[in-house]
Amino acid sequence: MSARDTVEIGLNRFARRGYDLDEVSIVPSRRTRDVDDVSTAWQIDAFRFGIPLVTSPSDAVVSPATAIAVGQAGGLGVLNAEGLWTRYEDPGPVYRKLRDAASAGAPPVALLQDVYCEPVKPELIGERIREMRDAGVTTAVRVSPQHTEQLAPAALKAGVDLLVIQGTIVSAEHVTTHGDALNLKQFIADLDVPVIVGGAANYTTALHLMRTGAAGVIVGVGADSFSTGDAVMGIRVPLASAIADAAAARRDYLDETGGRYVHVIANGRIETSGAIARALACGADAVQLGESLRIAAEAPAGGIWWDSVAAHPRLPRGGTSAPVGPVGSLEQVLLGPAQTSDGRTNLFGALARTMAKTGYRDLKEFQRVDLVIGGYDAASPGGQD
Amino acid sequence: MSARDTVEIGLNRFARRGYDLDEVSIVPSRRTRDVDDVSTAWQIDAFRFGIPLVTSPSDAVVSPATAIAVGQAGGLGVLNAEGLWTRYEDPGPVYRKLRDAASAGAPPVALLQDVYCEPVKPELIGERIREMRDAGVTTAVRVSPQHTEQLAPAALKAGVDLLVIQGTIVSAEHVTTHGDALNLKQFIADLDVPVIVGGAANYTTALHLMRTGAAGVIVGVGADSFSTGDAVMGIRVPLASAIADAAAARRDYLDETGGRYVHVIANGRIETSGAIARALACGADAVQLGESLRIAAEAPAGGIWWDSVAAHPRLPRGGTSAPVGPVGSLEQVLLGPAQTSDGRTNLFGALARTMAKTGYRDLKEFQRVDLVIGGYDAASPGGQD
Amino acid sequence: MSARDTVEIGLNRFARRGYDLDEVSIVPSRRTRDVDDVSTAWQIDAFRFGIPLVTSPSDAVVSPATAIAVGQAGGLGVLNAEGLWTRYEDPGPVYRKLRDAASAGAPPVALLQDVYCEPVKPELIGERIREMRDAGVTTAVRVSPQHTEQLAPAALKAGVDLLVIQGTIVSAEHVTTHGDALNLKQFIADLDVPVIVGGAANYTTALHLMRTGAAGVIVGVGADSFSTGDAVMGIRVPLASAIADAAAARRDYLDETGGRYVHVIANGRIETSGAIARALACGADAVQLGESLRIAAEAPAGGIWWDSVAAHPRLPRGGTSAPVGPVGSLEQVLLGPAQTSDGRTNLFGALARTMAKTGYRDLKEFQRVDLVIGGYDAASPGGQD
Amino acid sequence: MSARDTVEIGLNRFARRGYDLDEVSIVPSRRTRDVDDVSTAWQIDAFRFGIPLVTSPSDAVVSPATAIAVGQAGGLGVLNAEGLWTRYEDPGPVYRKLRDAASAGAPPVALLQDVYCEPVKPELIGERIREMRDAGVTTAVRVSPQHTEQLAPAALKAGVDLLVIQGTIVSAEHVTTHGDALNLKQFIADLDVPVIVGGAANYTTALHLMRTGAAGVIVGVGADSFSTGDAVMGIRVPLASAIADAAAARRDYLDETGGRYVHVIANGRIETSGAIARALACGADAVQLGESLRIAAEAPAGGIWWDSVAAHPRLPRGGTSAPVGPVGSLEQVLLGPAQTSDGRTNLFGALARTMAKTGYRDLKEFQRVDLVIGGYDAASPGGQD
Repeated sequence: MSARDTVEIGLNRFARRGYDLDEVSIVPSRRTRDVDDVSTAWQIDAFRFGIPLVTSPSDAVVSPATAIAVGQAGGLGVLNAEGLWTRYEDPGPVYRKLRDAASAGAPPVALLQDVYCEPVKPELIGERIREMRDAGVTTAVRVSPQHTEQLAPAALKAGVDLLVIQGTIVSAEHVTTHGDALNLKQFIADLDVPVIVGGAANYTTALHLMRTGAAGVIVGVGADSFSTGDAVMGIRVPLASAIADAAAARRDYLDETGGRYVHVIANGRIETSGAIARALACGADAVQLGESLRIAAEAPAGGIWWDSVAAHPRLPRGGTSAPVGPVGSLEQVLLGPAQTSDGRTNLFGALARTMAKTGYRDLKEFQRVDLVIGGYDAASPGGQD
Repeated sequence: MSARDTVEIGLNRFARRGYDLDEVSIVPSRRTRDVDDVSTAWQIDAFRFGIPLVTSPSDAVVSPATAIAVGQAGGLGVLNAEGLWTRYEDPGPVYRKLRDAASAGAPPVALLQDVYCEPVKPELIGERIREMRDAGVTTAVRVSPQHTEQLAPAALKAGVDLLVIQGTIVSAEHVTTHGDALNLKQFIADLDVPVIVGGAANYTTALHLMRTGAAGVIVGVGADSFSTGDAVMGIRVPLASAIADAAAARRDYLDETGGRYVHVIANGRIETSGAIARALACGADAVQLGESLRIAAEAPAGGIWWDSVAAHPRLPRGGTSAPVGPVGSLEQVLLGPAQTSDGRTNLFGALARTMAKTGYRDLKEFQRVDLVIGGYDAASPGGQD
Repeated sequence: MSARDTVEIGLNRFARRGYDLDEVSIVPSRRTRDVDDVSTAWQIDAFRFGIPLVTSPSDAVVSPATAIAVGQAGGLGVLNAEGLWTRYEDPGPVYRKLRDAASAGAPPVALLQDVYCEPVKPELIGERIREMRDAGVTTAVRVSPQHTEQLAPAALKAGVDLLVIQGTIVSAEHVTTHGDALNLKQFIADLDVPVIVGGAANYTTALHLMRTGAAGVIVGVGADSFSTGDAVMGIRVPLASAIADAAAARRDYLDETGGRYVHVIANGRIETSGAIARALACGADAVQLGESLRIAAEAPAGGIWWDSVAAHPRLPRGGTSAPVGPVGSLEQVLLGPAQTSDGRTNLFGALARTMAKTGYRDLKEFQRVDLVIGGYDAASPGGQD
Repeated sequence: MSARDTVEIGLNRFARRGYDLDEVSIVPSRRTRDVDDVSTAWQIDAFRFGIPLVTSPSDAVVSPATAIAVGQAGGLGVLNAEGLWTRYEDPGPVYRKLRDAASAGAPPVALLQDVYCEPVKPELIGERIREMRDAGVTTAVRVSPQHTEQLAPAALKAGVDLLVIQGTIVSAEHVTTHGDALNLKQFIADLDVPVIVGGAANYTTALHLMRTGAAGVIVGVGADSFSTGDAVMGIRVPLASAIADAAAARRDYLDETGGRYVHVIANGRIETSGAIARALACGADAVQLGESLRIAAEAPAGGIWWDSVAAHPRLPRGGTSAPVGPVGSLEQVLLGPAQTSDGRTNLFGALARTMAKTGYRDLKEFQRVDLVIGGYDAASPGGQD
């Protein structure tokens, strides 16, 4: 890394200068192209998708039914194998309780902590996966690193297509004095299904996770707009820089393996179609979206948002939101048409148009688009009356 | 470009550092001059103007009558040949519908989408141009690149003085697999009237547009204060840098042609007389103003603002505003006197005074004025009680 | 100037990076000292002051009576020779009219424009000066460069001690095609009283004004918190940088003359005792205060604030404020004690304490104190509940 | 210091670029670890603590009873030997008066000035210390440098364990013309108990204070969120930089003494568990917390906050806050569990988790964690609905 990327905050103590997605933007600099000639297709392992979308494994936006709808719209829905749908035979009353509590604003974190006390029932994992498989879409569930060995077998037995091993921060080397930690490399080598793993925060952790044999690495530490990881833990991962670093790791790993391409999936505060375009422009292959899907009519929590980390029993690290929307169907949110101009609907139609306006045909080419730092952003004063 | 203009956002991924107009300001650094000795005159091709003003082709502020008033005040009014005045024989009821919808705030984008569904009627283009010509002012209409070949003939036949080919982002090389794209260079070569074309976002696109034979190039991507292009498409063009880059392209093109001077017209979030002065100081020859004219009594939409991009049927990229004003006549807005001190009236009288306070006689000289980055801006807290 | 002080905003177009007072702060870095051992004394020409204070020549805060009170507290009151006190025999009704208009907020700029239409009466200049002289304080009046030759004689004849020639931006070389401009150097050479002149915005204009023979140069363009010079004219002078530049001009002029020391007086948005300390730390010899005095019980406009530039007939460049205060007597505002902790009272007692906490005995030494850029400022969120 | 750490604010006038805690953040970059394997233990001199916490000597949060509770939770409570508990035999009515005054918001500074007019009674110092000693916790009281020689003997006689000599800014060399100043080095050499001294603002003052023989140096000038030191005095100490500088002084002093390790205790606007983690990551050995403890049920002022500097008779430099909370018991605030996700409870449980997520076992190792500048912070818009 060149000298200008580090700052000496005090004598001999250095910090890296990182950039978040909203500091970076795209600047058109060459030809333009018809939007009809542009493709947003994405393929990971043997699975093809019309749009580069992986959902967050959040109960707020993903039920088996929503995962199916996402799949039908061209993306990959990820159900949380440690969430409400595997803790409760019928999560309906739990969602109603949360919605009732949200009638006067955001539901309290303490209520979340309470409903997630119910233990996970491995048999429900298989049941949910079969429900999604029966609809003919590509299926994926998320397990945490801590519970992977315990819960993954049920998912695999039910024929899940992709396994997502995701925690806030996942390293290829977890140290413990309490029994054996999950050996990711061994675990993945023994599996028949491709694994997506993360989050990772920089070049080194991304490269190490790639070396475990994963098909995709999630970059970012789940810092959506309601995350409080910075206030609670002092941890912050400027996402544009993290994506670009992980893309560098992808190139280096491709070289060291003579051709294994591991996908970089960006996760964290990607709220608009503009942010999706920026994440891909910085080098991501796909984006993981959660809160931005809560405005869809199909969102199971009726517009409330929380990340699973907000339910931590001793140290919750995320907020909950009051219900919003619905603004339109999931298809409208993902594929348009938009009837508002705030960048929250027609998320991937907008991406195609950005590619057209900058002259790129496919996502891999688009990762080379020119970037600019500085200038007005969407959140600046005077943007909307 | 020197090394300090780029930032390494992540390993081997670079972004340019760009500046917006409100980051840059003018600093007096030499003599002063009497304001009466200063000229704000501007000439493009054979057309002379008292003030360096081109209007946005927005239906919110430009009717044939307003275009005439702008011409009489010394500027160039541009009517949208694909706007309400060419879609409707009598746009009066449409304006009333929008104003009624705006009685409780900004009119909804969906209503805009609706009123712009009416097809353009080429015969109305000629009718509107003749109305403006009859008043004795220089006439100009805007067509989009997509419809130039279809609509320009009607404008030319009606004797338009200047043709403005304007889209959000226009390149000299548009690629399509659906029939032939407009060949700008060929099209302009065949024309008898001068063409202004844009928007362009950087040195390369500006230079390429200059090489098409245009008399003027619009710099900026239409990012007024209500634009949501950054949220929707992730595209942002820091205007001060884009203007300075285009001015460099102007110098290089002047050199490569041995003397063809192509005018740089700045477009985007120029809301105050201070911003006009900054745009010219960065190297622009003229400014394209839209939203700042909506406070004039002559604005046809009664103080509502929208850009045509806000009416896009599938992907609107701009907001609409609740009505404001009127604050004064168009002449007061452009030439004063001002009875408020917010920089929104006497726009070009203020420019003359800035030139006087910094000692410059004409606009071309003024492009060399000293600039400063940093310090308080007009929008900072405590500015106005 | 070193390379790192300039920014390339676009190809071959450079801007200086300037700093405002609130970006800079003082950092204690060596010994401490008893506050009783510290002196805030200031001397310009033969005149000695207990505190380094020159008032703005604003009718909002300076009447002959207030000027006397300022003098008695140790500072220099400057009456505007082109203000209400020389336009009206009895300005009382005018002040009342402004206060009445301010009962519902800030008085309108149009009303200011109206009351300043009344012509200046030279005989009143003499009368006001004599009133101040009779009280035994050092006297000073301000004239504009345009009217210096017409109005200064009346002031000189009445025995004024110091003449302040002040406009927003004053250059040593004013160019006009309408008769002769004021030749400052000639004019000052012919005078018996010392002259303070300004505002200047950078090294060059400050140095040129020093060479006119002035005893003091005002640095800054009158940009108080209500100034709209940036919005109206696009002109901005980051004050910390301007002061430091003028201090460099002072050193160079001292060298070129073999010992003439011209005082640098900082003007613009100095609202708190912290800002006073910062201005002096950047190199100023004294500060010119206006709006910060309006909270004194003696302020003639009862807590309303306007700068004379807000009354410009065609292009007002400043706002007016609703009335505030009074918070205490002028003596409390200047010398304490303070009963609030917002930095708006005990302005110069606080300065003495800052000098003590950083170990300096007098103002000249204090100009070397260590500075820091960055960190929390007083206006940051969470500062005061 | 390298060139890039200084900024030329004007010709030949330089300022250091400093960073505040919220500009810096932690980025996970290697292994992860079980939270149960992490230790937050801290030891200074012979005293061991479970958590690296020293309280501010503020009457708002520390009574003898609270100091005991802090000690029982694993930290060090510091009672102000010049505060309400040594001015009043029974401070109860004073607290009630402040709480009554705060029923409509923050209590006025003038009331604080009033209640602190009561003289300190040395005999009460001993009484309070004995009360804390009897509870079996490590005891500490704070004296100001001005009153150390007068008041310290009473504290020592009562058997205090640690003496905290703390003022806003304390130097190793205080200059006075009024009798003898405290000679810190001599004073400390003669003592049997370890001394913590501060605040210091940079490398030099920290190093000089280390050379006095102190066991710990407080870094920062008491700039909590209600501090107005910047507005009143123009003094600002970006804390991340100050901590890193003091850590460098600690290393250099360790080297020059061949092994004396002086602890760096960070003080100023540490409001969340995230800020605690950042302070330690920048190099601090412990943190001094005040305002963040006011939400504990045990806070003697019932959730009101003020720093002693807010009570200064002539120049108060801090605000007071309206009452908040209580949010939980002191133990919950310090050790959890948290039922909210704002980083204000379970302060040190969160620290342990940050250490685990970044793979460190103890606080000394954790001082090497990777840092990042930039990116979203907790206070950014959209963080919490």
